[in-house]
Amino acid sequence: MKLVPPPACRVGDALSTVASPSLLIDLDAFEANLATMAAFVARSDVALRPHAKAHKSVSIARRQIEAGAVGVCCQKLSEAYPFAAAGIESIHISNEFVGADKLAMAVELAAHVRLSVCVDALPQVNALGDAAARAGVNIDVLAEVDAGQHRCGVTNEDALLSLVDAIADQPSLRFAGIQAYHGGAQHIADWNARKTEAGHAADRAASFVRALEARGIQSAVVTGGGTGTVEFDAASGVYTEVQPGSYVFMDGDYGSLAWNGNLRWRHSLFVLSTIMSATRPGMAVCDVGLKGLAVDSGLPRSVRWLDGSDEPAFTYAAANDEHGMLHAKDGQQHDTRTLLGKRILLPPGHCDPTVNLYDEYVCYRGDEVVDFWAIDARGLSR
Amino acid sequence: MKLVPPPACRVGDALSTVASPSLLIDLDAFEANLATMAAFVARSDVALRPHAKAHKSVSIARRQIEAGAVGVCCQKLSEAYPFAAAGIESIHISNEFVGADKLAMAVELAAHVRLSVCVDALPQVNALGDAAARAGVNIDVLAEVDAGQHRCGVTNEDALLSLVDAIADQPSLRFAGIQAYHGGAQHIADWNARKTEAGHAADRAASFVRALEARGIQSAVVTGGGTGTVEFDAASGVYTEVQPGSYVFMDGDYGSLAWNGNLRWRHSLFVLSTIMSATRPGMAVCDVGLKGLAVDSGLPRSVRWLDGSDEPAFTYAAANDEHGMLHAKDGQQHDTRTLLGKRILLPPGHCDPTVNLYDEYVCYRGDEVVDFWAIDARGLSR
Repeated sequence: MKLVPPPACRVGDALSTVASPSLLIDLDAFEANLATMAAFVARSDVALRPHAKAHKSVSIARRQIEAGAVGVCCQKLSEAYPFAAAGIESIHISNEFVGADKLAMAVELAAHVRLSVCVDALPQVNALGDAAARAGVNIDVLAEVDAGQHRCGVTNEDALLSLVDAIADQPSLRFAGIQAYHGGAQHIADWNARKTEAGHAADRAASFVRALEARGIQSAVVTGGGTGTVEFDAASGVYTEVQPGSYVFMDGDYGSLAWNGNLRWRHSLFVLSTIMSATRPGMAVCDVGLKGLAVDSGLPRSVRWLDGSDEPAFTYAAANDEHGMLHAKDGQQHDTRTLLGKRILLPPGHCDPTVNLYDEYVCYRGDEVVDFWAIDARGLSR
Repeated sequence: MKLVPPPACRVGDALSTVASPSLLIDLDAFEANLATMAAFVARSDVALRPHAKAHKSVSIARRQIEAGAVGVCCQKLSEAYPFAAAGIESIHISNEFVGADKLAMAVELAAHVRLSVCVDALPQVNALGDAAARAGVNIDVLAEVDAGQHRCGVTNEDALLSLVDAIADQPSLRFAGIQAYHGGAQHIADWNARKTEAGHAADRAASFVRALEARGIQSAVVTGGGTGTVEFDAASGVYTEVQPGSYVFMDGDYGSLAWNGNLRWRHSLFVLSTIMSATRPGMAVCDVGLKGLAVDSGLPRSVRWLDGSDEPAFTYAAANDEHGMLHAKDGQQHDTRTLLGKRILLPPGHCDPTVNLYDEYVCYRGDEVVDFWAIDARGLSR
């Protein structure tokens, strides 16, 4: 007999019977987010290339492409494998990489999909050009520029021009344009301040594009932006393509930002948890901690009763490995013993690393489980 | 053709060629930690039941048992499955659980191993007793008491006595003793303050034990303690069993504590990373962020060059999803471009949730890869 843990639930089960912890997608909210983004980019002049690092799921990537996306971004080469294997034809690696193991993946992927990658240093270009030539594949290369995040990307026009010249010297590489991503701008809470910082990033991108144009070099693609700035990026006239990822889920961090424009996102991602201990008045302990919730962008900002009951409101106050500490919001010493076994929904503070903890999404509509979607790229960080 | 990412390395490979990110175990340091703990408990009156939530690996559990451990602890029922499937005969679930899905796992496990579990409320006892009776299995039950953490566990003697009476009323359950674990005490940096708080926890445990003895009830097992307090717990005369987990790895958090006693642990767990971008003086970017390192107990406290070179010292200053920001320790504007492609070793701040991000350990000795150990229980949080 094979001794393995039973599945969390079956299609058709009531949500109230799903084993916890489970990672849930509210399909109504998820589909509303998909439709909102599809309508938004359809009205704009930019292409949508959603970031698959947020969801790591072929099932979601397919739905994004059906809704008009031109392909996906991945942050790592290994992360791209399940999407390539599933037949997704256009994949952009929105990141630099170095080393023989990475080059081997790049040329293998390029034999199966239209692959583009980022570079910000000459050794990356030369190694990739050599590997692609040896493998007989062609790879599109984007030069990453520092748009204000001060992380990766060239910091001046001379460095950019050197990169582009080096790409031109490699017969198996094609210069495809510029990546200008400013991660920090995504998370500025104030809408106007976020708009201003997104504008600075677009200005920096534009100045790099102009420097190339002055040398007669066109940037077919200018890619960047994310969920927090997509409305500004799309209107900038600079970007040809945007890379939002979290919009499908709207996590706690993004949910805490001001959204003054026309874009509104719904929380569609929740961790299902159960109260498994309640021995002290005014507090309770649930079965989700650090191994079921990423806390780098804060603890869950709300605790929702799955059954919609009007029990006292609790805050998720602290996370241990496998425990979450719930404290009564009003500070009162409520007798919590009757809460034992009650289910709660927790919107994660940060969706990307939370998703990376699970092997599947349990998809529900109303009170019913309707589907499971594999998190195909979980753990693929090479 | 199956399109899957290649393995990180092969047995016999040089460590310098392992793909990054990878989770490494320095076997010399790991074995020294195993031996230190084995010698320590052999000199004491307590049994060693290491916590498998730290490593989630059958390969490590087997080595612990070969070195004298009486079995393992798991924090969740699903986590116990791979250990039960591998033939580990004695498993303690050091945690409460509620719900039909959990009861089904408990009785299935109890049919295969000698299972003990924790309770701190009457409904848990009654539901478990009914489920065990229906399934025809016997389960050892420990009453968890609050030893100072104020998380789970009964808070007074009356509640404990009610629990023990309820256990006695269930023919399929056997009262096996008390769990008194104080997680907070583990991480007190000052050695004397940690000793004092561990003493308080032992005193609380002892008072609960005496309350039962006054009723003629013996606690065959008094289990608790962890890596931070094991030297005090073993000497307390209260505990019969200790549950340390992190000692095999010694993470950054535990490494930052004072260790005035006879126990010394070596860092044996490292995340291997590669510098993949270095465009700004005095800083560099490596390929491990939130998806390869848990940051809840702080960022990696050191950055070691894999090749032992004397390049400038860097600190790991910030983690994005898939990027780590390295800053020169001396604040100087070093030209970092030559660091592109260099490998670093990062001891994680918190081992448990970091381990939960990976599917395997790459085990090395000196400069050579000598084994792979599966992280069998990764993601098993139910």
